[in-house]
Parts: sequence; C-alpha cells; structure tokens
Amino acid sequence: MARWEGDAAGRLREAAMRLYGERGYEQTTVADIAGEAGLTARTFFRHFADKREVLFAGSEILLTRMVEALDAVPVPDGPMRAVAASLDAAAVMLGRDRAFSRRRQALIDANAELQERELIKMAKIAAALRDGLLRRGVPAADASLAAEAGIAVFRVAWEQWMAGSDDVDLPAVMSAARARLAAMTAA
Amino acid sequence: MARWEGDAAGRLREAAMRLYGERGYEQTTVADIAGEAGLTARTFFRHFADKREVLFAGSEILLTRMVEALDAVPVPDGPMRAVAASLDAAAVMLGRDRAFSRRRQALIDANAELQERELIKMAKIAAALRDGLLRRGVPAADASLAAEAGIAVFRVAWEQWMAGSDDVDLPAVMSAARARLAAMTAA
Repeated sequence: MARWEGDAAGRLREAAMRLYGERGYEQTTVADIAGEAGLTARTFFRHFADKREVLFAGSEILLTRMVEALDAVPVPDGPMRAVAASLDAAAVMLGRDRAFSRRRQALIDANAELQERELIKMAKIAAALRDGLLRRGVPAADASLAAEAGIAVFRVAWEQWMAGSDDVDLPAVMSAARARLAAMTAA
Repeated sequence: MARWEGDAAGRLREAAMRLYGERGYEQTTVADIAGEAGLTARTFFRHFADKREVLFAGSEILLTRMVEALDAVPVPDGPMRAVAASLDAAAVMLGRDRAFSRRRQALIDANAELQERELIKMAKIAAALRDGLLRRGVPAADASLAAEAGIAVFRVAWEQWMAGSDDVDLPAVMSAARARLAAMTAA
C-alpha cells in the first residue's frame, strides 16, 4: 500500500496541492479538498486549522528540530556554530523532496497571504533561535544577530536549492551559503 | 507656527499615534483620527490609504534612500560595502526621533496585523537591495545573501537603539552591529 493511501493528512495535503495548482489557492475550499481526498471536512479539520495550514503544517516540527540541534552544540563552540548546526538540521529535514518544495513555493509566490504566512514562519524561527542562544548565555545583541544571519542563510540556500539542478543537495547549499556570508562580511 | 500646525499629514499622524496609544489600534477609526486632528476623513484619505499606513508612511522614502545610497557606492567596493552604505543612509533617516520610534514600535508589538506589515516592509527592502546588487553585476546568490544579511543587521541595530540609552546614536549602533556580524561569522 502506498504511504498516502492510509494517511489522511498526507491524502489531504496531496489533494490540496493538486487543487491549488489546478484552480488556484483562493478558488479552492476545504470542502473541495476533503472531497478530492475522499474524506469529510470534519476529518480535514482534525488535521489542519484551515486551508492555509496545509502548506505550513511542518513548520512546528521544523522549529523544534532546529532548536534541538542548536541546544546540542557545546556552549564554548560559540553562537554561529550552534546556528550552523540548526541550519544543517533544517536542511536534512527540508531537503528530501525538491519536487514538493517547488510546487509549494510556486503556490506561495502566487499569493500575498501565503507569502505573509511564510514571513511570519521565518520570523518565529529567528525568534526561537535567538531565545535558544540567550539560554546559552550569548549576549542579547549577538544572539539576535546570529539568529537573523542564520535565517538569511536559510532563505538564500533554500531558494538556490529549489532553483538548482537535481544533483545539488540542500545541506551542501546551506553550508556553502554560510561560507559565502563569512567571506563577504570579512571583505 | 509649530511645524505640525500647517502640516495635515503630520497632524493626522500625531492624532493617530495619540489615539492608538490611548484606545488601542483596533478601537481607533479613521473618523476618530481625522476628528482628533481637526480635519475630515476625506483629508485623511488624501494622505494615507488606511489607518495602518499612518505607521508605515515613511517606508517608500526609506527604501528609495537606501537604494540610492547603495547605487552611489563604486562597484569595485563589493556588495557588503554597498549594503553598509545603504544601512548608514537608513540610520541617518530613522535615527532622528527615538521617542517617536519607540511609541511606534510599542504599537506594532501589540498588534499581529501591524507586525505582519512590518515584516513585509523589511522583505521589500531586502528585495530592493538584492535587485540593486544584481544591477551592479553581483552574482544572484551573493546578492541575496548580502541583502538579507544587511536586513539582519538593520533589525538588530534598530531594536538595540530603541532599547538603548539616549547617548547612543543609530548610525553608531548600525556600524557596530555590522562589525559584530563580521567577527561572529569569521569565528
């Protein structure tokens, strides 16, 4: 049995992506998505708060993984190494399915409300990384800077990876973007 | 005559800030603001698209100044120097009135809709800086990274300056944050 057949959330997500792509995000209702997946609207709402959340359901897990990775780095290694570990964890998690990521990004790029939601998600991750660095005793200004710089690397690497050829993997792009930022700021 | 007396936009802004502070942003209408300023709603709409824009009216000018400063740096100086010049221009423009900035920030921090608008504003500035760097022949990934890193410095310096004591000026905080980012990424 294919994974999605027994997985209501996965079926709903797949149905939503298909309809958003065919009809547009605005024109698709929760009832449409549930119908397309052969499920009820009630089942939809057990898995997602609204039709927007279908595209952002992984972001809580992503944030948790990134903070765990940050926390796992020994404090003496400094804030940028902790942020780097956090980005590597994100890259491993997000770098699995480029075709899905591209479809999702195309939907987001076409809709201002989804773009706002994506900005808010990134701001939440930045705040969580900053808080994690504060817990490690990093001074406030350095914690904010390291977290925001990490998010800058994240965004850029993510875009590059989605636009790139299939032989490039996200962890490698993320690590190269970190090195580029260091080289540019040093210059 | 005090400056605001002959300046409808300034009077409306001052009235809006006062009412937002007293009643809350949600509870204040355009009619309230116009009445408080001794003007009509029609005059309000000649100056601002809606009550939210009262708090963001300067952002187009800010973006223009930042891009002009970026463009004025000789191309061989590299992307980070161009971004630095752009941040310095922003610091000069924004660093004049800390009391106003603090009041404005307190309103934004209290309202999710305003926070979103602020995120969008920063994303637009990042995109404009990136486009400016692309026009200078900076490779796409470097242009995005330099622009996003610049915005990271901007945000952090801005917060620090608002929280800081009155003898610290924004251009100095901005420049120190740039230096800290370079030192942290090099480590």
